Amino acid sequence: MTEMMFSLPKGFEASGVSAGIKQSGDLDLALIFSNEAASGAAVFTRNAFAAAPVIYSKGIIARNPRGLRAVVINAGNANACTGEDGLKDAREMAEMTARKLGIPPDSVFVMSTGIIGVPMPMEKLRKGIPLAVERLSPDGLERAARAIMTTDTVPKFASVTLSLGGAEATVAGIAKGAGMIHPDMATMLSVITTDLAVEPDALGKALRWAVERSFNAVTVDGDTSTNDTVLVLANGSAGNAAINEKSKDFRAFAEALLSVSRSLARQIAKDGEGATKFATISVVGAVSEEDAKKAAKAIANSPLVKTALFGGDPNWGRILAAVGYSGALVEPDKVSLQVAIGDDEEHGEYLLLASGGRPVPFDGKIAARIFSSDRVIIEVDLGLGLESALVWTCDLSHGYVDINGYYHT
Amino acid sequence: MTEMMFSLPKGFEASGVSAGIKQSGDLDLALIFSNEAASGAAVFTRNAFAAAPVIYSKGIIARNPRGLRAVVINAGNANACTGEDGLKDAREMAEMTARKLGIPPDSVFVMSTGIIGVPMPMEKLRKGIPLAVERLSPDGLERAARAIMTTDTVPKFASVTLSLGGAEATVAGIAKGAGMIHPDMATMLSVITTDLAVEPDALGKALRWAVERSFNAVTVDGDTSTNDTVLVLANGSAGNAAINEKSKDFRAFAEALLSVSRSLARQIAKDGEGATKFATISVVGAVSEEDAKKAAKAIANSPLVKTALFGGDPNWGRILAAVGYSGALVEPDKVSLQVAIGDDEEHGEYLLLASGGRPVPFDGKIAARIFSSDRVIIEVDLGLGLESALVWTCDLSHGYVDINGYYHT
Repeated sequence: MTEMMFSLPKGFEASGVSAGIKQSGDLDLALIFSNEAASGAAVFTRNAFAAAPVIYSKGIIARNPRGLRAVVINAGNANACTGEDGLKDAREMAEMTARKLGIPPDSVFVMSTGIIGVPMPMEKLRKGIPLAVERLSPDGLERAARAIMTTDTVPKFASVTLSLGGAEATVAGIAKGAGMIHPDMATMLSVITTDLAVEPDALGKALRWAVERSFNAVTVDGDTSTNDTVLVLANGSAGNAAINEKSKDFRAFAEALLSVSRSLARQIAKDGEGATKFATISVVGAVSEEDAKKAAKAIANSPLVKTALFGGDPNWGRILAAVGYSGALVEPDKVSLQVAIGDDEEHGEYLLLASGGRPVPFDGKIAARIFSSDRVIIEVDLGLGLESALVWTCDLSHGYVDINGYYHT
Repeated sequence: MTEMMFSLPKGFEASGVSAGIKQSGDLDLALIFSNEAASGAAVFTRNAFAAAPVIYSKGIIARNPRGLRAVVINAGNANACTGEDGLKDAREMAEMTARKLGIPPDSVFVMSTGIIGVPMPMEKLRKGIPLAVERLSPDGLERAARAIMTTDTVPKFASVTLSLGGAEATVAGIAKGAGMIHPDMATMLSVITTDLAVEPDALGKALRWAVERSFNAVTVDGDTSTNDTVLVLANGSAGNAAINEKSKDFRAFAEALLSVSRSLARQIAKDGEGATKFATISVVGAVSEEDAKKAAKAIANSPLVKTALFGGDPNWGRILAAVGYSGALVEPDKVSLQVAIGDDEEHGEYLLLASGGRPVPFDGKIAARIFSSDRVIIEVDLGLGLESALVWTCDLSHGYVDINGYYHT
């Protein structure tokens, strides 16, 4: 299986090189290239301080949604809060990449992650981009995944294969996360590629549907960054008839995209800054999906719940208190709470901690064992309706304080 | 000046005793008593899981706003998520206190703070309450302030004296805070007493005005608890003509109440769990006060900003990023940011870090010195309007993780 890791769909190549943007000398420049023009769709940060590459790439995807050929991504500098000069630099990154690849400038998508407010070291990119082009290879995705890491501890990759109308196809993506991960995106970048042919509108619809159920269900610290972007490229190398929203294969494609997105999102939550454990927050029985999300996010973002997870302390009172201030419609005497080792895909036996808004007698040793495991699922039933929501998060540890207290500005 | 510490207005007595609710044996039961019937007004938590004493005391203040005589407060058990039994226990606390003092049961206000979801140890209160009554003294306020502490490291007290219409009067209060402190209240209790005569409606109006500008401007970790309560009692022992909303003295009284509330709120922020520094977040130039608050709270609650404060790191990018996702109307190229050692009452020279949404050249050593001080004021000018808001908070430290990761549930 090892050789299957980080493999790209047909017609794509990738590379990851060191351009010297990171002071460490680690890989910091990634390139993903499609041999044929690809359809593209993207979801961007809603932060008002959207970074230059976000502003630039929004324009690219709007003008040229069927003609994308490459994505150039640097780590170490976010090109955010850099004004007009930053926009010029993002454009120059695209133009250098296009020139070296012999493709149109408006076929190149740009992403950046790293320090905010520092001008892009363009002289380093002028050397790094040609190197990244030279190193392009069908086997280059793992190096690309490594080159986009910042405080991530592991590269993140996911893929599924599917057979649609006789064509064998792949959906494969990479991502980076770690700090500032939040629903509504964060310093979170992801590029997902497929060799299926998909119309841009259908691609965008499937992406927004998948992102809402994956990347937007992850929260590490509640912060939302200036650079978050998820891009999907579909280059048609599989030879299928182009999928549109009415195709019978649309749902299968969207499910495959969701499967890859969910895997990447979970990897991001597990690799949250300083995380020692992965937590899945499930809220059911809400009167609306919005209420379920409010309650789940309030639990997931509560520093008191997150430190209790770190300490392995089954502090059910903090969980109910978070539900109580979430803004969701709550009737205390209808609320119940249970926990288990595991997550939403696989978990052990549930232990009931509270019912009717009150604690029930439970075995403290079992509760402590669940809260001390490295995968905890917390399920709150509001007892009012049929709607539910799921959020993935991690604990709040000494490591988080260290990483963010002493991160070089 | 020392003997002036923790002194009560005329006609009040207080005590603090150990009833054995805290396992440590520390003081855990406070009583404040008025020799005459007092007007009362209170502000309560908005958490849907309001604790039993909150529900009980809401009823008392609604039914008997002119006849209050005592407040009984225990620490070590919050009597929250305890259902009907909890309500019965809160009522019994009031009745025991009333019986021992020879006053009507519905003249006693009840507050609790501590562990959630554990039945109140009523047998301990049956012994403790008579002791607290016996120990009542005009000099007992400091012990009362100590008896309501949980993870607080210092007791909190503030007072002002004023002369109204020939009467010399005092407004004096105590508070506890520490964890879960948040705008919209938190595990935060405060009792403010005055020997002025004030009509209940005027008292309530002044209290809501003062709380909004003091306790609700404090945030430690964004969590909001089940028990938060601020109570003000006015017993008229100063002999003034009762103040109503139309009295010429109403504003002077409200300002005195605000002054005491602000002092207590600042003490709470400074004593936030694990706090190593006190931060004042000032947002000016907003189009609405609501927007200014949104931006200030987003900065104050950002774990990334709070860890940067802990690390002494002038990470202006995280501050702007928090403004960017706050939901406030923001035009990035209008935003400026400056910082100084100090707070909103007194501060050193401001250092400009960003202007027009971009960093400006600044002396990194001065910036690091400011962020390393134990009092930092961060001022963001949105550059769009005339409205402003102020929030007090503290940093996020290893100590916070320790206190909340290992707190006994």
